[in-house]
Amino acid sequence: MKSRCLDDIPLGATVSITSRGRSVFLNDRLRPLGLSAGLFPVLMLLYKEQNIMQETLVRHYRLDKGTIARAVRKLEDAGYIRRITDPGNRRAVRLFLTVKGKEAAPLLRAIDREWEERILTGLSPEEKHYVQELMHTVARNSFSGCVQERGDDFDARR
Amino acid sequence: MKSRCLDDIPLGATVSITSRGRSVFLNDRLRPLGLSAGLFPVLMLLYKEQNIMQETLVRHYRLDKGTIARAVRKLEDAGYIRRITDPGNRRAVRLFLTVKGKEAAPLLRAIDREWEERILTGLSPEEKHYVQELMHTVARNSFSGCVQERGDDFDARR
Repeated sequence: MKSRCLDDIPLGATVSITSRGRSVFLNDRLRPLGLSAGLFPVLMLLYKEQNIMQETLVRHYRLDKGTIARAVRKLEDAGYIRRITDPGNRRAVRLFLTVKGKEAAPLLRAIDREWEERILTGLSPEEKHYVQELMHTVARNSFSGCVQERGDDFDARR
Repeated sequence: MKSRCLDDIPLGATVSITSRGRSVFLNDRLRPLGLSAGLFPVLMLLYKEQNIMQETLVRHYRLDKGTIARAVRKLEDAGYIRRITDPGNRRAVRLFLTVKGKEAAPLLRAIDREWEERILTGLSPEEKHYVQELMHTVARNSFSGCVQERGDDFDARR
């Protein structure tokens, strides 16, 4: 019986399969918290930096505005974040964690680490470091840009 | 201005961003063909092997049955594939490429290579090879299994 293993599939397919596997894993782990894979990146970004604009999320994750708006609304409804509209600019919505959101941080970080450990199984410490470094380059190339702190400009520099 | 580059985000986020970037790229390239990113993997698998069961796709890509069924129907409607139900087993639907489907193969493979070249920009030939090898391991770990030719069993062996 010939084996149709992952060895002979292109790089793009490995990325899709890994990403799909991550969604399945995250949905499974986050369900008890009333969260899902699509909400995870928003919370993870807020754990790094609060008071960010909703628009920054759109640029950071290159998702369409509607997808981010729905994720933000779900997180607000679930009590994890609050949205504050800039009094001087009604289009500028800034995002903050609630106490519930802050308290979930260690658990969400542990879930992310668990996934990392799972997918890096069988690699040496050097390979683990290397795959992370290479995937940063790949992700950067994927959109060739990253977001600056003020949230409104792309920066293609390293 | 502090930079919030991809350097300081976790591995999982790089995978999600890369996968999202791939979908954007594929949708852009496939639109003129009446195709989309979600249909791409089905065609790519059929370019490797025809006469596969619809169920095999579900297992190969770990997508739910409904998602695969919709993709297969869209490809059939667009004239790229045909579905043949096994006379002895009405639940067994086998998939074949049409002439139109076969003729699209070189273009679709070129699109996949173009994406690979784009995301591997700046890596040495050794790094390019290495990232592909590492991503195979990561994808395998992601679901810890692969599909055998007969389409109905997982095989976790290399």
